[in-house]
Amino acid sequence: MLGQVLEPVQIADMIEAEQRIRKVFPASPLLSMALLNKQLGANVYLKAESLLPSAAYKFRGATNKITTLIEKYGPDIRIITASSGNHGMACALAAARLGIQATVVVPEPTPQIKKDCIRALGAELVESGINYDISFLTACKLADEQKMYYVHPVSDRYTLAGQGTITLELLRQLPEVDQVIVPLGGGGLITGISYAMKHLKPSVKIVGVMPEDSAVYVESRKAGRLVTLDHASSIADACVRVGGEEYLFPYIEKYVDELVTVTEDNIRKAIKTACLYAKLTLEGAAAMALASLIEGKTTATDHTVLICSGGNIDQTVLEACLKMPL
Amino acid sequence: MLGQVLEPVQIADMIEAEQRIRKVFPASPLLSMALLNKQLGANVYLKAESLLPSAAYKFRGATNKITTLIEKYGPDIRIITASSGNHGMACALAAARLGIQATVVVPEPTPQIKKDCIRALGAELVESGINYDISFLTACKLADEQKMYYVHPVSDRYTLAGQGTITLELLRQLPEVDQVIVPLGGGGLITGISYAMKHLKPSVKIVGVMPEDSAVYVESRKAGRLVTLDHASSIADACVRVGGEEYLFPYIEKYVDELVTVTEDNIRKAIKTACLYAKLTLEGAAAMALASLIEGKTTATDHTVLICSGGNIDQTVLEACLKMPL
Repeated sequence: MLGQVLEPVQIADMIEAEQRIRKVFPASPLLSMALLNKQLGANVYLKAESLLPSAAYKFRGATNKITTLIEKYGPDIRIITASSGNHGMACALAAARLGIQATVVVPEPTPQIKKDCIRALGAELVESGINYDISFLTACKLADEQKMYYVHPVSDRYTLAGQGTITLELLRQLPEVDQVIVPLGGGGLITGISYAMKHLKPSVKIVGVMPEDSAVYVESRKAGRLVTLDHASSIADACVRVGGEEYLFPYIEKYVDELVTVTEDNIRKAIKTACLYAKLTLEGAAAMALASLIEGKTTATDHTVLICSGGNIDQTVLEACLKMPL
Repeated sequence: MLGQVLEPVQIADMIEAEQRIRKVFPASPLLSMALLNKQLGANVYLKAESLLPSAAYKFRGATNKITTLIEKYGPDIRIITASSGNHGMACALAAARLGIQATVVVPEPTPQIKKDCIRALGAELVESGINYDISFLTACKLADEQKMYYVHPVSDRYTLAGQGTITLELLRQLPEVDQVIVPLGGGGLITGISYAMKHLKPSVKIVGVMPEDSAVYVESRKAGRLVTLDHASSIADACVRVGGEEYLFPYIEKYVDELVTVTEDNIRKAIKTACLYAKLTLEGAAAMALASLIEGKTTATDHTVLICSGGNIDQTVLEACLKMPL
């Protein structure tokens, strides 16, 4: 696929990535909220990726990847991706800020608000197919026909390097960090974070959290190989998938200490808890680290960081979560 | 009143204040959210004071003031204040973090959740009177009887210096800043910010925003003297008051370029807009700068900063705001 790089990532890629992205946006804040800590009965730190310009960590990988493409192929390239979610928005915004054309292919049933959003951020929107798999094939075909560079949402050395910059920021913001709890869907976020942490401060425990009905890497770890689920669903839409990534699975097996699952109700409670006590609008995936504490699947240490991956939640979902008892 | 300092503030106080508070918490983030900008049709920056540990800018003044008291009178002092809101929580938390005893006097009708919260943050809670005026008198009496130092919510050189640190952070985060829009209630926040800005970068326009039914400084500016309103009410509870502060009015008249008012409905819309597009839980007061843009009372410049003062909003109020049409 034109532009995709499947070589192993290295720490130097992340150091370069941080220099590139810092020209586009500042570090995400690391927050310590007293009312949240009282509510949890434990002190935690929140890495608020939901407050990056595209409202999700995906902006790191997209900005870094597109910048490397411009460095290599010049400023007249066009990029393309298939995504209806945070990666599509991140690519649209990163391309706009870096001054190049982007095409985002979305499945036809994508909510109108997300389509409007991708267009508003300056990308060309192509609607194709009834699901992501078909959008992906269309995007590959368009990329080939029109010589556009493909920005893969997770499986790419430079996308991964972008996500790894979270660890570089964290080690400056909280050198005492001893545990990082990370939402896990496709695997790009946790791979970037854990690879960097296990090289830079190996004593830090890395925990991945998956929705109980979309836990492909949990099942794959049990099986000792990448498996495919019969079905997957969750309120944490950014983490729903039946299959894992071949490029990332070995990293996850090597660098992630523990995988846990959380229930849908605890994700909803975590969204409400974040809204009222941490003052953050979080989407389902972003609330999963908090949900794992609420559910007792993880335990706060002296310096536990919860990765709050994004904030793009539908209003109706947020309103439903606010009705949950705490 | 024991401990209160009504001398004029100076920039050096703010530089010292920043060094003191930086030992307790990091700078609040300055955010640029793409979806918010698209929604507004203008680029703005949000200074998210709602993400400080006590979820409001009051933590700056309280931390600085209490630290100066400890520096002057030693570590065995006790502090007291009257407040049912953000200042009470800020004092409770700052005292706890600095290792001293705090007493917070609240009016009896204060919502149970706020009482619980102040206690949870480690302060002794005293319930007294049916409103703030009576709580204030009780606090003064207790301060006198028990030799406790009073931490005034707005009228104090060192509280003011704490709020002024916002400007020092802003000038580092966005040196190009050309306009700051600030919620205005008691006046401590805007005085600290505007005094610092007009000394350090006088070309920056400072706009104060008040709720239309609680606009004492707007009426006072018209009258050329501090007036008292017959009544005051707003969803922006932190900004509701019938009278202004003698200590602050001259600063506001000298350093604030423009005062505007906003309607209750636009404050509600701004709270919803912040929640969905800026990914922040804001209380009424904190959403007023955004409301002024929505209402057309202010206009975004190239580098406009909206001060988002705090995030302590009741769930029922937030839910009602989410029902507003945008």
